[in-house]
Amino acid sequence: MFTSRPIGSVSSPYKNGSEIPKGLGAKHDADGVLKILPEFEPGLTDIEGFSHLFVLWEFDRSQGFELLGTPPSDNRQHGVFATRSPYRPNPIALTVVELLRREGTDLQVRGVDMLDGTAILDIKPYLSNVPYEKLRRGWLAEAEARQR
Amino acid sequence: MFTSRPIGSVSSPYKNGSEIPKGLGAKHDADGVLKILPEFEPGLTDIEGFSHLFVLWEFDRSQGFELLGTPPSDNRQHGVFATRSPYRPNPIALTVVELLRREGTDLQVRGVDMLDGTAILDIKPYLSNVPYEKLRRGWLAEAEARQR
Repeated sequence: MFTSRPIGSVSSPYKNGSEIPKGLGAKHDADGVLKILPEFEPGLTDIEGFSHLFVLWEFDRSQGFELLGTPPSDNRQHGVFATRSPYRPNPIALTVVELLRREGTDLQVRGVDMLDGTAILDIKPYLSNVPYEKLRRGWLAEAEARQR
Repeated sequence: MFTSRPIGSVSSPYKNGSEIPKGLGAKHDADGVLKILPEFEPGLTDIEGFSHLFVLWEFDRSQGFELLGTPPSDNRQHGVFATRSPYRPNPIALTVVELLRREGTDLQVRGVDMLDGTAILDIKPYLSNVPYEKLRRGWLAEAEARQR
């Protein structure tokens, strides 16, 4: 096992959780900056060729975990591993962002849903999609259908 | 910061790294099992409705990190955050798998690229794709074009 360390932090327009769009139909199109620590700058080499990135970050404002919970997008309980709840055994979050441009150690991105100052754990290139015709979205698709 | 803890382990046909398909055109269609620890079983509630899952797992056979490295799919160096190298500041890996079926705490999946016994850190539902027309794949697309 390992102890996490930040490779940088997020500059985000969201200062507290209530400001982050949540629930069915929520859009994540806010711009922000992934501010990478100078010691890791060589690790960004050639990143500007990718349109989208996976950002792994830490739910550093959440304490503990809940194996069952009711997400903002439904009124029914689901297992934590079937949701994006911040109360997870390992407090790791995953967001796909669009890379707008790189300025040194600053990655200007679109699609942030993190709080300002959140610790970044890792960045990976987004390489491929799941074929649309094979994608099923479980309880989320059902919750959307019920809302219509 | 947090210390990672396993929520389960991977049962995989790959017993050592040289058996895992790598490089351009490598296909990951091996079947395996995500064996979740019994104490986390409630966290799997409703997961069977999703066709695909993100699996976060630990590079537990890799030591240290390298900010620049030459991936198996190219003969040129790239930054670690523009590759899927196992030598990362936080040794967290990400794989998208297809969920074939659930049997209690065993998730039968397709698309494993982990070694047998690898520690699983988290599972999240795969909810959406990046629009194909917006996806650019940087040095990887260039390496593929040079090979043709």
